[in-house]
Amino acid sequence: MAAALTKIRFRDVQIEMAHGAGGKASRRLVEGLFAPILFGPTIEPLADAAHIEVNGTRLAITTDSFVVKPLRFPGGSIGELAVNGTVNDLAVSGARAQALVVTYVLEAGLSTETLETEVRAMAKAASAAGVVIAGGDTKVVENGKADGMYITTAGIGAPIPGLALSPAAVHPGDKVLLSGPIGDHGIAILLARGDLEIEADLCSDTRSVLPLVEAMAEVAAPGLRWMRDPTRGGVATSLNELARDCGFAVILSEDAVPIRDTVRGACEILGLDPLHIANEGQFLAVVSPEHADAALRALRAASGGDQAAIIGEIREQPSATVLGLTGYGGTRVIDMLVGDPLPRIC
Amino acid sequence: MAAALTKIRFRDVQIEMAHGAGGKASRRLVEGLFAPILFGPTIEPLADAAHIEVNGTRLAITTDSFVVKPLRFPGGSIGELAVNGTVNDLAVSGARAQALVVTYVLEAGLSTETLETEVRAMAKAASAAGVVIAGGDTKVVENGKADGMYITTAGIGAPIPGLALSPAAVHPGDKVLLSGPIGDHGIAILLARGDLEIEADLCSDTRSVLPLVEAMAEVAAPGLRWMRDPTRGGVATSLNELARDCGFAVILSEDAVPIRDTVRGACEILGLDPLHIANEGQFLAVVSPEHADAALRALRAASGGDQAAIIGEIREQPSATVLGLTGYGGTRVIDMLVGDPLPRIC
Repeated sequence: MAAALTKIRFRDVQIEMAHGAGGKASRRLVEGLFAPILFGPTIEPLADAAHIEVNGTRLAITTDSFVVKPLRFPGGSIGELAVNGTVNDLAVSGARAQALVVTYVLEAGLSTETLETEVRAMAKAASAAGVVIAGGDTKVVENGKADGMYITTAGIGAPIPGLALSPAAVHPGDKVLLSGPIGDHGIAILLARGDLEIEADLCSDTRSVLPLVEAMAEVAAPGLRWMRDPTRGGVATSLNELARDCGFAVILSEDAVPIRDTVRGACEILGLDPLHIANEGQFLAVVSPEHADAALRALRAASGGDQAAIIGEIREQPSATVLGLTGYGGTRVIDMLVGDPLPRIC
Repeated sequence: MAAALTKIRFRDVQIEMAHGAGGKASRRLVEGLFAPILFGPTIEPLADAAHIEVNGTRLAITTDSFVVKPLRFPGGSIGELAVNGTVNDLAVSGARAQALVVTYVLEAGLSTETLETEVRAMAKAASAAGVVIAGGDTKVVENGKADGMYITTAGIGAPIPGLALSPAAVHPGDKVLLSGPIGDHGIAILLARGDLEIEADLCSDTRSVLPLVEAMAEVAAPGLRWMRDPTRGGVATSLNELARDCGFAVILSEDAVPIRDTVRGACEILGLDPLHIANEGQFLAVVSPEHADAALRALRAASGGDQAAIIGEIREQPSATVLGLTGYGGTRVIDMLVGDPLPRIC
């Protein structure tokens, strides 16, 4: 009964929306309550997927719940997110998704047509990602709960040979790569809710990033140090987690980060930093200086990777910090997301 | 795009509570909508867990969402259910749970104390079941949604050597075993809600059944044909699924089924059949006639198995039917659960 004695550091008296936003509050909850009680000492509580041994074989496992509002939005839907999100968590942990399982919590009164649309979206996304759906479960809750549906997926994957990803493998001089433009998903959701009086042709970036990861791994596997998909909390939060976990500085060339005008404009109106906006089809990678150019070329040559960029590098100092360099020669400290400016985006 | 062309047979225009109750409506939803669109042809849509090959190794995978009300009840809580339910789904598919992943959908305003209690309950149940929790995810939804919390677990397991379970392995003459008294969980939940003016000392039966399964497998593995944990829909629904899947008759000696007086009494008051009430710590097994006595002795000798019983047998006719034999020499057809008399019991 060691668990019964575990002290927890989480001091908030109740759960707030920010605890689900992927930023500082989420981190406090996970590190202060879930990790000490629930996870074994070998589990990295904030990693995208755990790599474990089952029956003598290494495999990766991960899970995510999806509660996005609205259920459908330009470029995607909850069903697509639920498949791609789990495929991507496996991919950036260095694994190829093999099988998913799915559960639905459905609201009584949900139209069958809406459900069928999402089930078909999941089948299509699974087919595109090359993964089978091996089972599932359905619960129904009363009308008024669950906003139509919540979907949870769990996935297992096979490690991609030759990859050994870890923040501990990151060294000063390594380059930071980004697979494409940021903020599309979060802002597309915001626009779909009609909260902003903006007409724009922006689509969520939801997709499987596995083909891009594999293209990069093929030419740069020995130089690949770390990957993450910057979902809730955005690029800024992922890079802060990296900086903290590796202990070095992440120096971000802000002008090198691809951002669409629509995303930039919406963020200006809302006073948000695009670096804090969620993505569902992009990833960050740290690559050794020797392999960085080859990795970038491979990404750009792959379908959907033409806007990939080297956006920064790792330096010794200031330790455990993300610094942004602007075009005008200025610098700023870039922090994790605080609060929850865009709730329920995935 | 084969998925886009798949015809579905599910004709209900909207989702009702009964679609989550585990009986006939659930089966229509799974077989009529989810299975044709989502699952590959090799997946048994209603099996407790799928056995698949990943990276050259056979393993079992399963998932369940838990939405029980209230969160805590005599004998257990949502956190314990979420661990034991997935461990048990793996166990009755013939696998030993190795790792679980967990997601929480939390309602804003949930007290940290309530959350911590459930996280600790999960850690304790995982420790008791010998399984590690390898990762997770947390989402937060607005106050008024999600009834405090919904928990989803997914689990992977290693196949128990020597077991080859399938309805196709079931033959006339085989015996049907039950691990212990039925209906405790469903009726304990009902009493905890205060819907009935009954004072009773009844506890949910939630527990890991893996030790019982392993005790039985040790002496009777070659004779073990099929297992299932009769959760939603109860023993009657599980046996009907067996009868349909194997094509034979399941002849149930009703007097042989262990049922506590409290459960029997509550069912009489409510007009419910104990055979339709959910269990969370029992399982059914079909065993060859040569191995049935050894299997029963092993169950009874194991901790928590002292009320195990042989409750019936498989016969050629009437095909795909469950027949109950009463002590007075009568017979009745026992059907699956219809409707949802006890919603949200797991």
